Amino acid sequence: MTEHERVRTVRRRRVIGDDTRQPDEDHVAVEEPLEIRIEGRPVAVTMRTPGADLDLAAGFLFTEGVVDGCDDLTALAHVDDPSDPKGNTVDVVLASGVGHNRRHRADRELFASSSCGVCGKATIDRIYQSIPPQSRSFQVAPGVLHGLSDRLRTQQAVFGQTGGLHAAALFHPTGVLEVVREDIGRHNAVDKVIGWRLRSDAVPIDDRILWLSGRAGFEIVQKAAMAQIPWVVSVGAPSSLAIDLAHRVGLGLIGFLRDGRYNDYSA
Amino acid sequence: MTEHERVRTVRRRRVIGDDTRQPDEDHVAVEEPLEIRIEGRPVAVTMRTPGADLDLAAGFLFTEGVVDGCDDLTALAHVDDPSDPKGNTVDVVLASGVGHNRRHRADRELFASSSCGVCGKATIDRIYQSIPPQSRSFQVAPGVLHGLSDRLRTQQAVFGQTGGLHAAALFHPTGVLEVVREDIGRHNAVDKVIGWRLRSDAVPIDDRILWLSGRAGFEIVQKAAMAQIPWVVSVGAPSSLAIDLAHRVGLGLIGFLRDGRYNDYSA
Repeated sequence: MTEHERVRTVRRRRVIGDDTRQPDEDHVAVEEPLEIRIEGRPVAVTMRTPGADLDLAAGFLFTEGVVDGCDDLTALAHVDDPSDPKGNTVDVVLASGVGHNRRHRADRELFASSSCGVCGKATIDRIYQSIPPQSRSFQVAPGVLHGLSDRLRTQQAVFGQTGGLHAAALFHPTGVLEVVREDIGRHNAVDKVIGWRLRSDAVPIDDRILWLSGRAGFEIVQKAAMAQIPWVVSVGAPSSLAIDLAHRVGLGLIGFLRDGRYNDYSA
Repeated sequence: MTEHERVRTVRRRRVIGDDTRQPDEDHVAVEEPLEIRIEGRPVAVTMRTPGADLDLAAGFLFTEGVVDGCDDLTALAHVDDPSDPKGNTVDVVLASGVGHNRRHRADRELFASSSCGVCGKATIDRIYQSIPPQSRSFQVAPGVLHGLSDRLRTQQAVFGQTGGLHAAALFHPTGVLEVVREDIGRHNAVDKVIGWRLRSDAVPIDDRILWLSGRAGFEIVQKAAMAQIPWVVSVGAPSSLAIDLAHRVGLGLIGFLRDGRYNDYSA
């Protein structure tokens, strides 16, 4: 996926005070629908920024509980369809061992969008029930946390260009960056990093910190909990339900990480 | 709805540099699921901040094309259910004139979350087809636009407290504020202001500017277009698909409105 497809040049008129400039060019983040299919059957449409589509599909199916690991994925590829020249469809073939219940969890429950992962779900309780038990396998040091955003700044090229993308990243407990992904939808960025690990046969992710450029709502903590990530660290605010879920599963939750400060909302 | 229910007090440990303070209190935005039912049948679950729930439900059903105006709503109320003490369920009774197609548009298509309005929809083309034709009924003056955010600052109390809420507002073309609503989901804030107008029997909204505290993605412009709002003005970045849709329907789209500057992305 080239940079070209994640950012598009558009025309705009810049207005400064009362002065309207001549039209010039601006760069905006690309938003396109991605349809995820299981063996030809559409199970989700998510509004995403193209790039790392296979990671996104894999991570989505994992955080929704359809697949448990990369062995459950027999094939994962864009659909070659002349009516979809933009590559907006991914098809997944599941291993024969993935039973009916998991395969058809998709039928009623999997609907997604540019910023959500809890669509179409009947109750929060059902979501809670699907989260595996976990333990906070390591502690985080203030000195490590303060340094995370700086380490990402040079990586997050598109965000700098457009102001329109979220980023999610995995860090080692020592603060070393493992992977960063960007998307117009915060939850897609999270699914992309989790899916990248899954496709590397490296889930659960109980040995990493998940860093987020924005806020941490319920869906973000839910996805982290599904992957057994022990720490979620965000630059923005947590929601009440995100804190509730973090307390319930024992996940560490940090908010407002900026300028050498942060708030620890962990129980 | 009291302020108490939109903001919750939580415990946190504040860390400044290497110094971990004693635990104290912080305020976070409340996030709770709202289930929207049509005559007892669940059609959507959206992660929202409590408050203006009936506006949210009405606006959601309008921007999804289920109802065309307040005459289509025979009843709209929270469900009185002891198992739902938080008031997280709203039921709508539709007028008998609302036909089968519109009633059952919900069955497969209406799924929502804290930040989306396009869940479960098969194609963008189908969304385009449902948008009514419109004309940009008035122009906006730079002096008016520069003043909008200041007029809201005093109103947006919760955002100031938590950093965790989006706001959407309707302004007269002269810059006079009509209504502002906040939510953890940007699209819910938009549905709340649109629903407020619908319940006041004042749709379409072809006589107002829609102002947003954050970015403008496809779903936001789609909702504005359903309500025939001529101008969408956001403090943040637009997406590529938001610009495409605005051009296609003739809607005016302003981004990065801050510090006496903005970008006009309108065709």
